Amino acid sequence: MNKPYTRLDKDNAVVLLVDHQAGLLSLVRDIDPDQFRNNVLALADLAKYFKLPTILTTSFEQGPNGPLMPELKALFPDAPYIARPGQINAWDNADFVKAIKATGKKQLIIAGVVTEVCVAFPALAAIEEGFEVFVITDASGTFNALTRDSAWDRMSGAGAQLMTWFGAACELHRDWRNDVEGLATLLSNHIPDYRNLINSYNTFTQR
Amino acid sequence: MNKPYTRLDKDNAVVLLVDHQAGLLSLVRDIDPDQFRNNVLALADLAKYFKLPTILTTSFEQGPNGPLMPELKALFPDAPYIARPGQINAWDNADFVKAIKATGKKQLIIAGVVTEVCVAFPALAAIEEGFEVFVITDASGTFNALTRDSAWDRMSGAGAQLMTWFGAACELHRDWRNDVEGLATLLSNHIPDYRNLINSYNTFTQR
Amino acid sequence: MNKPYTRLDKDNAVVLLVDHQAGLLSLVRDIDPDQFRNNVLALADLAKYFKLPTILTTSFEQGPNGPLMPELKALFPDAPYIARPGQINAWDNADFVKAIKATGKKQLIIAGVVTEVCVAFPALAAIEEGFEVFVITDASGTFNALTRDSAWDRMSGAGAQLMTWFGAACELHRDWRNDVEGLATLLSNHIPDYRNLINSYNTFTQR
Amino acid sequence: MNKPYTRLDKDNAVVLLVDHQAGLLSLVRDIDPDQFRNNVLALADLAKYFKLPTILTTSFEQGPNGPLMPELKALFPDAPYIARPGQINAWDNADFVKAIKATGKKQLIIAGVVTEVCVAFPALAAIEEGFEVFVITDASGTFNALTRDSAWDRMSGAGAQLMTWFGAACELHRDWRNDVEGLATLLSNHIPDYRNLINSYNTFTQR
Amino acid sequence: MNKPYTRLDKDNAVVLLVDHQAGLLSLVRDIDPDQFRNNVLALADLAKYFKLPTILTTSFEQGPNGPLMPELKALFPDAPYIARPGQINAWDNADFVKAIKATGKKQLIIAGVVTEVCVAFPALAAIEEGFEVFVITDASGTFNALTRDSAWDRMSGAGAQLMTWFGAACELHRDWRNDVEGLATLLSNHIPDYRNLINSYNTFTQR
Amino acid sequence: MNKPYTRLDKDNAVVLLVDHQAGLLSLVRDIDPDQFRNNVLALADLAKYFKLPTILTTSFEQGPNGPLMPELKALFPDAPYIARPGQINAWDNADFVKAIKATGKKQLIIAGVVTEVCVAFPALAAIEEGFEVFVITDASGTFNALTRDSAWDRMSGAGAQLMTWFGAACELHRDWRNDVEGLATLLSNHIPDYRNLINSYNTFTQR
Amino acid sequence: MNKPYTRLDKDNAVVLLVDHQAGLLSLVRDIDPDQFRNNVLALADLAKYFKLPTILTTSFEQGPNGPLMPELKALFPDAPYIARPGQINAWDNADFVKAIKATGKKQLIIAGVVTEVCVAFPALAAIEEGFEVFVITDASGTFNALTRDSAWDRMSGAGAQLMTWFGAACELHRDWRNDVEGLATLLSNHIPDYRNLINSYNTFTQR
Amino acid sequence: MNKPYTRLDKDNAVVLLVDHQAGLLSLVRDIDPDQFRNNVLALADLAKYFKLPTILTTSFEQGPNGPLMPELKALFPDAPYIARPGQINAWDNADFVKAIKATGKKQLIIAGVVTEVCVAFPALAAIEEGFEVFVITDASGTFNALTRDSAWDRMSGAGAQLMTWFGAACELHRDWRNDVEGLATLLSNHIPDYRNLINSYNTFTQR
Repeated sequence: MNKPYTRLDKDNAVVLLVDHQAGLLSLVRDIDPDQFRNNVLALADLAKYFKLPTILTTSFEQGPNGPLMPELKALFPDAPYIARPGQINAWDNADFVKAIKATGKKQLIIAGVVTEVCVAFPALAAIEEGFEVFVITDASGTFNALTRDSAWDRMSGAGAQLMTWFGAACELHRDWRNDVEGLATLLSNHIPDYRNLINSYNTFTQR
Repeated sequence: MNKPYTRLDKDNAVVLLVDHQAGLLSLVRDIDPDQFRNNVLALADLAKYFKLPTILTTSFEQGPNGPLMPELKALFPDAPYIARPGQINAWDNADFVKAIKATGKKQLIIAGVVTEVCVAFPALAAIEEGFEVFVITDASGTFNALTRDSAWDRMSGAGAQLMTWFGAACELHRDWRNDVEGLATLLSNHIPDYRNLINSYNTFTQR
Repeated sequence: MNKPYTRLDKDNAVVLLVDHQAGLLSLVRDIDPDQFRNNVLALADLAKYFKLPTILTTSFEQGPNGPLMPELKALFPDAPYIARPGQINAWDNADFVKAIKATGKKQLIIAGVVTEVCVAFPALAAIEEGFEVFVITDASGTFNALTRDSAWDRMSGAGAQLMTWFGAACELHRDWRNDVEGLATLLSNHIPDYRNLINSYNTFTQR
Repeated sequence: MNKPYTRLDKDNAVVLLVDHQAGLLSLVRDIDPDQFRNNVLALADLAKYFKLPTILTTSFEQGPNGPLMPELKALFPDAPYIARPGQINAWDNADFVKAIKATGKKQLIIAGVVTEVCVAFPALAAIEEGFEVFVITDASGTFNALTRDSAWDRMSGAGAQLMTWFGAACELHRDWRNDVEGLATLLSNHIPDYRNLINSYNTFTQR
Repeated sequence: MNKPYTRLDKDNAVVLLVDHQAGLLSLVRDIDPDQFRNNVLALADLAKYFKLPTILTTSFEQGPNGPLMPELKALFPDAPYIARPGQINAWDNADFVKAIKATGKKQLIIAGVVTEVCVAFPALAAIEEGFEVFVITDASGTFNALTRDSAWDRMSGAGAQLMTWFGAACELHRDWRNDVEGLATLLSNHIPDYRNLINSYNTFTQR
Repeated sequence: MNKPYTRLDKDNAVVLLVDHQAGLLSLVRDIDPDQFRNNVLALADLAKYFKLPTILTTSFEQGPNGPLMPELKALFPDAPYIARPGQINAWDNADFVKAIKATGKKQLIIAGVVTEVCVAFPALAAIEEGFEVFVITDASGTFNALTRDSAWDRMSGAGAQLMTWFGAACELHRDWRNDVEGLATLLSNHIPDYRNLINSYNTFTQR
Repeated sequence: MNKPYTRLDKDNAVVLLVDHQAGLLSLVRDIDPDQFRNNVLALADLAKYFKLPTILTTSFEQGPNGPLMPELKALFPDAPYIARPGQINAWDNADFVKAIKATGKKQLIIAGVVTEVCVAFPALAAIEEGFEVFVITDASGTFNALTRDSAWDRMSGAGAQLMTWFGAACELHRDWRNDVEGLATLLSNHIPDYRNLINSYNTFTQR
Repeated sequence: MNKPYTRLDKDNAVVLLVDHQAGLLSLVRDIDPDQFRNNVLALADLAKYFKLPTILTTSFEQGPNGPLMPELKALFPDAPYIARPGQINAWDNADFVKAIKATGKKQLIIAGVVTEVCVAFPALAAIEEGFEVFVITDASGTFNALTRDSAWDRMSGAGAQLMTWFGAACELHRDWRNDVEGLATLLSNHIPDYRNLINSYNTFTQR
């Protein structure tokens, strides 16, 4: 009766970045802004590093929701970019779903703003269609903790797996020996404590 | 084994506002009062905006529990108003259940004070009778976080979906194009950060 | 697949107060001591008010765990009192289980110190034997929130219902008309905010 | 050696609202947005109610800082409005200081966004020039609590008095008998708990 | 330049209980209600125990502020009771000041609701007139921590000493040998952790 | 449909200590370091006390992750020690799994750093293979509460039981009479409040 | 007008440990017990390491307050030990003051339980007599943060310097070169994060 | 009697960065690591932007304290770099003080790790020598909030001004017109919310 152990597989995963737009970001108050910005960029770097197909989408970006974070556009110049004309649930946008299905992947790694809408709605819809959904909780933000807790309960109850970018990176990488340098760089760039460890280590051992 | 994705449908939903009374409101300490008042009024405006049938009920309003928030009465002058003579669980009141069934809707959007009693009891009873229950967690309040967490666990375990008013509004609306102005007004009136976005946007683009 | 709605029934419930001993109480740090003491006494008063059979038990009370709160002994002079000689899980003590079974009740309302041991162990054992278990979370305390959250997860996952004393009182009472005075007194004695409401109400209406 | 008791006097006070602009408001994270918006509007209503001269100023409002909250403009259509062309410290703007001095008042009631800059800078400068400065702490916001605490320490150390809008209203009003209706309306409009008290009171006594 | 050590002296102190009224109590949110009620009653018991002259006052008790806590009236049936007809600052009421001066005491122990008004205003005024003011911070409550911190800063900066009821009791008592039984009873009645210590101690030593 | 009550059995349990390395420990911020260190050592002492087979493993200990806590090595000089050459999920290391299976135990008591990776990955894998998994949540640490909550949700959803070291000790011990001295020593060494109880008890009763 | 920089001097300082008794320790809730115990032992080790004269005192240790922490007695077998027969303020005990004056030191390093009484009272009295007082805030505990904040305000306002044990150790030591090994050991024994740094450092550099 | 308004002046200020070393950074737990790293780099960028003379110093960097953050070294390749051989208080190092005095500046902007030692000690010493000291509180970190609060109290009491990097930047810049682009870039690089404002603004106005 328990959820089975569905393990992230870098050959079977696609990353969905939903509505990380300048205006919507100002609504996020369940995570400190320095931390949240770092988490979103970390997830983007993760997608890049593992060469996962990545899909960008925005909601009504001509209005107050504002433009997508320019860093995301710059990182994925060739990614499908679906500027939804009005659908709140990205899954209601045929182009978005088509882009996902075109990758042939069955595992969806999803993050967005705000959690209970831009993340939860497509997550729930995707599960209904048989996808395995991994919500990156720390790259998804919303108004406050109460809202987040409600959203997590709904998504988890429906079968989504809640993970953070670091956990996803580790599950995708599997073994440090696949590329020590690469993973260490990803971690060093987004985990100050880990960067400190590496700096000290290098200093102490390179003498 | 997961809960299926039951999506709010504005043609199939009714809103239940349970015991938002002046006295009981003073018991609510798991949400700041400015925030809570705003959330309750937002849910009421949502019901109005989406033209959802709405049912008001109170517990023992002649006693210390006090009168219903006058704003709710004013917003729904023609709504069924069930002043329960004593039943703590609104579902134990035949008029209340009859009023719900008279709408012919299968989705119940419910909020009230206090969460673990006025919301949880009818929510649990309604699920038993086959309704789909959506608890608006941020328009429901109680004594403290520990009590709320217990109540959420009980309701979620029984099959209720935990949502907030903003998530419900978005799921009901489906597509901004259905009415940009209307939804934006609802959000602007109840989300200061969103109001700021709109104010800046209008200023910058109307030059 | 959801838990069914099991409703507390005053004709079918027994209250178990487990290890509210002077020494163990000093370990409780997930709830403020004024609040916790009040909650425990409220639960005891509830048991008294609804005339629920009540069973007291202690763990090793001759040692550092210390004596049972004297107020509990005084309230239930004739209740079964099982001073366990060593069993940590009260359910491992035959007298305790026998006392419960002797009541013929199927619903167990349980609270104790500390949550993850003195409450969780008998709760889990009782569920295995087919009892319906209601944990009174705010009359149960432990070392810190992390420990509590772990214990709740374990108990809820096993089928226990998490409630607070106020929710239990309301579910047992069903209808204010059964005894307005009695329930109001119980609430007034243990909920300062409610007491204030009653005081103001009486002053304003008795003029 | 203690600060003397300088008491707010409605005949000697002017209100300064500094940089409550749409963009800057999104930076405020030491107070919840519903609460903060309410506090700012309460202070504005207070100024109106006590007929205190009020001065509005903005920083760089043509840029990303965005427009002043429209509600403030609407409430004070005839107030001096100093759109500072660049000075960060409003006191560095001659028009702002001239407008203050033109009122002939010696007590400055000041609030703004962000606390450590838009409030603290003019507050410190005004104290140097011999004004009595009252900072309305709950209508002033900034990035986080650490920043706020630093700013409070600096302002208090320099001689500013830290007050909230409610305290200021009470100190200005002195005696309920001056106008029961007026003060009650101000409080009812901005303190949900007080509004509840009034609603219950009216219901109970008007029967 | 430091504040001198002004020590509470039971022969020179008077207790002022300001506006602990049913309605105003519902505004207190910087302290949990169980804890706050306990603290207020502890201060009252302290006044009784040390036979300190005690003065009660209320603000507008015929209106929504509601009646004084009945327990306080009952404890001090013969104390001066000044029902202020409108003055917000109790010190503006001549009867209140006269009652204080009639005691001939120079040390004022003051607590009330809400802190920044009902406590701070008379505290600041009393200091101006040369009284030594001791604010009982834990028997004084207000809307939130931000408001409290502002009020404390203002009172402390003006020369008030911030104490809690327990600290005041200990400073007044000076030496356990003056009355072990009496002080222990006061502490046991209002500090659950201390009560536990005594219960265990008595059990272990009375064998 | 509930999880059955799987009870820890000292004859059927093995303890897995995963990656408690000096560098990784600096990443733990969801538990205070004094508390976390104490919990880890408590779990180790528990393993020793109950003579449970114990397995140590480290991730990349030649690099920045750093050496295993020396106290753990010292406590279990003869325990299997698997220094994983690169596998992030310890279960991907054949030696680790072999060491577990060699014990013949079916219950895995697991703790590590960081929770969502070093604990969750092997926990999920072990459940898939039919082991009963008990996560010691307070001896497992990670970056922040949000990450921990996500990890707990994933593990609990998969069937793991969340416990703390104290709960585990009590469930393993079953009855104080099995060894009063031994259990009391374990608790006294790692629970300051319990140590205080014992110290007072001994003083009072040994007179 | 500022406090001058009074620097701790190991040749001019005495350590006062006030009422760290088993019963009173159970009252401390403003600091987690693992952390608090560690801080108290760290301060004791500091006193030992710098060979500072140390004075122990207890309040009513034959009663519920319980015995002094045995570790403190063991560390300072020859220190003056003043078991006060009843004086709450240790400074009211002539033996205690005499013991301090006998050391000839002018700087008092003081910590105790509870902060607002056992620490604040002698601290305030000592300042009056011209001593320089350094309160070790993290080795002093009390009921809750509100009480602590009140006590700090009173002590700081009277001229006490608020420090923690680590700051005091560093100010006393002045220069690592005076004894690298000794200070490192003190820090390693009481700061887990520092211990980790040392463990990693040694591993990396001793290869 | 108040502190006078000492205003930061870019022609009279020097920046001191004290002990931001990899090992010591792992001790900082009163600020989230993403936020802290950002604040430190923001302060460094501020120093660079305003061309303030900047002095770097480290404590015992050959030992476990570890190397200075490489980013700081890279930003200030020509700055005085004082690797202190053992002095804990940087002011005890003659080279450090000489480097400061060589700048001829009277205003010290200081930040470091840990606050109560590496920042507070030189801050207090510098005030004694007549410097004006501005502590950048958000680029200074330490073990926990209790330690920070103690350190702030000591420094503020001695006359230091507590500021954050953003406040300092604004006070140094004085007027946006001095360089709109430059200041906006500094803010955009280190305040995600401000960056969002600029991104939206540019998008909306560049159409």
